[in-house]
Amino acid sequence: MATAKLTGSSCSIARSLGVLGERWTFLILREALMGTTRFGAFREALGVAPDVLAARLATLVEYGVMTREPYRDEGSRPRDAYLLTPAGRELQVVLGSLQQWGDSHLPWPDGPTVERRARGTGRPLRVGFIDDGGREIGLDDVEMVRTAAYPT
Amino acid sequence: MATAKLTGSSCSIARSLGVLGERWTFLILREALMGTTRFGAFREALGVAPDVLAARLATLVEYGVMTREPYRDEGSRPRDAYLLTPAGRELQVVLGSLQQWGDSHLPWPDGPTVERRARGTGRPLRVGFIDDGGREIGLDDVEMVRTAAYPT
Repeated sequence: MATAKLTGSSCSIARSLGVLGERWTFLILREALMGTTRFGAFREALGVAPDVLAARLATLVEYGVMTREPYRDEGSRPRDAYLLTPAGRELQVVLGSLQQWGDSHLPWPDGPTVERRARGTGRPLRVGFIDDGGREIGLDDVEMVRTAAYPT
Repeated sequence: MATAKLTGSSCSIARSLGVLGERWTFLILREALMGTTRFGAFREALGVAPDVLAARLATLVEYGVMTREPYRDEGSRPRDAYLLTPAGRELQVVLGSLQQWGDSHLPWPDGPTVERRARGTGRPLRVGFIDDGGREIGLDDVEMVRTAAYPT
């Protein structure tokens, strides 16, 4: 279950964390973005307790990040697979930014374990700010501007 | 105190969350990126218990996200202010990606309360993937590639 207080916040960071910020959820999403779909595969990859995993997946389905799709292996009972929706796939940007920050500021002794690359060209990718003309904008030139909807 | 198990992980997303993933930490960082520096101002903006706020700020200092700087208002005892380091300012990308996702997929009835704009031009900004030639790469063309450092 997501944190109701956060999902009702006027701050979109707080709302996102209301859905995504529970322990395990980002790591479940990491596995999903690497192609994991089955309950048992999430469990094995993460070593997470089944009841916690079921609760986190249910929240992700409830908020439209994943969909539940039945499948059936031959000779087994039907089970559910969990697939990212388009909204879920957009979390690649969030996960990529966390990965990039961790690789820069909490480095692993052997170097990054996963790199972000462009399909086709293989060029290394970073996550950053882009203006509506497609130009990258450096951090020093990024402003957070309150709108008329900002609570007073 | 950060989650030791996560900060020792080979996964940079897990390490980042080991430092950043405690409840309140992202919201403290949001305030810091909007210019808040003083303990009392964080406390007032967030309504967070002082002991929890002190613990979260201590973790952020421990991991090099913030520095503690003494200040003294006239007639008061010396106090500490908390300033983002360059590593802390780079979290703008993480916070911006969470904000963007929340505004798209968990919208606020009155619209976004904060927008990302380029200083000078005022152009709207989004967070996305950029290759080493400065070109934006769409999500469908982003690959996560395991390196030789990936644990087997």
